[in-house]
Amino acid sequence: FTSKLPDTGPSIFTTMSQLAARHQAINLSQGFPDFDGPPRLISLVSQYLQAGHNQYAPMAGVQALREQISAKVETTTGICYDPETDITITAGATQALFTVMAALIRPGDEVIVFEPAYDSYAPSIRVFGGIPKPVTLLAPDFVVDWTAVEQLITSKTRLIVINTPNNPTARVLADADYRQLVRMVGDTDCYVLSDEVYEHMVYDGRKHLSVTHYAALRERAFVVASFGKLYHTTGWKVGYCLAPPQLTTEFRRVHQFNVFSVHTPMQWALADFLRDDDMHTELGAFFQQKRDFLVEALETTRFRPLPCEGTYFLLADYTAISELPERAFSEALTKHHGVATIPVSAFYHNNVNQHLVRICFAKKAQTLAQAIERLRLVT
Amino acid sequence: FTSKLPDTGPSIFTTMSQLAARHQAINLSQGFPDFDGPPRLISLVSQYLQAGHNQYAPMAGVQALREQISAKVETTTGICYDPETDITITAGATQALFTVMAALIRPGDEVIVFEPAYDSYAPSIRVFGGIPKPVTLLAPDFVVDWTAVEQLITSKTRLIVINTPNNPTARVLADADYRQLVRMVGDTDCYVLSDEVYEHMVYDGRKHLSVTHYAALRERAFVVASFGKLYHTTGWKVGYCLAPPQLTTEFRRVHQFNVFSVHTPMQWALADFLRDDDMHTELGAFFQQKRDFLVEALETTRFRPLPCEGTYFLLADYTAISELPERAFSEALTKHHGVATIPVSAFYHNNVNQHLVRICFAKKAQTLAQAIERLRLVT
Ligand SMILES: CSCCC(=O)C(=O)O
Ligand SMILES: CSCCC(=O)C(=O)O
Repeated sequence: FTSKLPDTGPSIFTTMSQLAARHQAINLSQGFPDFDGPPRLISLVSQYLQAGHNQYAPMAGVQALREQISAKVETTTGICYDPETDITITAGATQALFTVMAALIRPGDEVIVFEPAYDSYAPSIRVFGGIPKPVTLLAPDFVVDWTAVEQLITSKTRLIVINTPNNPTARVLADADYRQLVRMVGDTDCYVLSDEVYEHMVYDGRKHLSVTHYAALRERAFVVASFGKLYHTTGWKVGYCLAPPQLTTEFRRVHQFNVFSVHTPMQWALADFLRDDDMHTELGAFFQQKRDFLVEALETTRFRPLPCEGTYFLLADYTAISELPERAFSEALTKHHGVATIPVSAFYHNNVNQHLVRICFAKKAQTLAQAIERLRLVT
Repeated sequence: FTSKLPDTGPSIFTTMSQLAARHQAINLSQGFPDFDGPPRLISLVSQYLQAGHNQYAPMAGVQALREQISAKVETTTGICYDPETDITITAGATQALFTVMAALIRPGDEVIVFEPAYDSYAPSIRVFGGIPKPVTLLAPDFVVDWTAVEQLITSKTRLIVINTPNNPTARVLADADYRQLVRMVGDTDCYVLSDEVYEHMVYDGRKHLSVTHYAALRERAFVVASFGKLYHTTGWKVGYCLAPPQLTTEFRRVHQFNVFSVHTPMQWALADFLRDDDMHTELGAFFQQKRDFLVEALETTRFRPLPCEGTYFLLADYTAISELPERAFSEALTKHHGVATIPVSAFYHNNVNQHLVRICFAKKAQTLAQAIERLRLVT
């Protein structure tokens, strides 16, 4: 059997979460909260389950949910996405990403990705015969070299994938970055896939700059978002994809044969809950407080935090502690010190090693405090 | 924009369900029950939601659920699928089908499908550059011409898709069919994708013959099943894929980047429920009674039922009523007589017209009775 993805094992998230479980380590690796979502939302799901909303949802998603999303997006960005033609509910953000690749990529197409990159991008591109073209960003600043990007864009470039706030760098794209991108794609046929699942987690008074703010990008962009991130329910697997009508048509052509539809009771509950919820306005402050705690507490360890502008991840430099490469260091940290993290090298195709681990701080104060206790002993 | 699926509109299920809604027709088109799943199962989902099982499930699925599936499959077929290496939980059966195609198919690969065929097969094959090779089965008997199949198998044949009990023909594969298949694939490299989502709906004392019964097929087969079909909860979107370790490895390589994982509370509830449930043993009798009612009641109309050995679909011949092609007839039936069905031509790439509509009988007795009232007026 010749595999289509011969170099792909279980993802780093599976690997580290399993290792954490095996060693009873505090799991700050895979990104998920160790606390629960809003009780009212959870009750709503039960209500819709009991009320018999248990058959196929419409292929594009429950109409009421798409309407609520449209309203929410218009409130936060001023841009109107039509529930009928521009919004599709997906089985989590990952399925939306994969479906965009499926709809667009033909063998030989090139796709620009910025590394470090979420680990699903490159293999998803390859499954459709596409060729990932990585642009490498390096610590500590992970600045985008737009000249390098421009040089990569050719007639073969089908898609550019951006992700802001960025997992794992915890940086956000600035207006200046977007302006470069606008200039660059201006007279090309390439599309933009914008992974904005951490849109509500931005700190220190920053605002999330969505690709939707830029008309020249919006008309060629698929925007991917996630309710799991917003409502602390990563296991519910409900996300969505925003795109102009023609792109949504292509998206749905594949979506209907990939998952057909997304589970029904969750969609009804989300529609109901969104109607008078503004949790997204509080999410930044909520997680900033956790970030601040972690940054301050790391001062008492030999780990050095890098700046965190958004997401619920923080990068920490362990140069003062060890010369081990990141993967080996993360494994040792899990096994011998009981704290699981993600080696940042896993987000680079060539495993660039910068002595960095990614720490997920979507955890109870007590969990973070306990992890710090343990990290203090790592010298 | 040049579409990868230029000929694909919204699926026939979406089209007919929307038409049914618009005309307040009784919807016997898209396959789903108009009654609810087991109350205890629904309560269990609520319990797991409340108990905080709301973060990512393991990529392959909740361990307890995979164990229950393994036990159930062993009980019903005598074959042991290892929860660790052979079973993956999917976001419904459709996602399992799509993921198998993704894992196997490269541009130019040929895939044998038997038509009439579930509408996702061909477009899913094409998204990956594969070429569907249809074998046409015709009413009234839909017999497989195995000589024709044999002639289609070449060194390019990557996959053969089978579906028993069959949607939409309502026929089941016999041991003789499987023996032919065993002989034919013997010295080839082709794989088998066996869509068995209607496994528990077989009638008149028949037994479902799974591909798993045939060692020579099992070792190269992906078997796809669905909890939505078993528990009357098509909107929950939980299915699974059984395959030997090497094939499961390939399946998961793609699965983890397609949806990553499946919603968590449903998986826990299903695991719990499966432990002491034997609904699958009663499902045949439950639906047979509905089939019998429908067949008998159709005698009072000008529709002629075709034999139904399995699934919750029945084909009805309207030759005595109209010369309209199936699509036009189905639309007229929906608009003017208030009963939505599926034109069987939609399951053929070349829209073969046999004056047949597919009727879903997974409906309350009252719904079926009311539909019959209306069908009686169609003359
Ligand atoms: C889908 S599993 C990984 C969750 C996540 O986004 C991350 O840890 O980066
Ligand atoms: C996934 S929508 C269609 C449901 C079904 O299997 C059918 O009606 O054939």
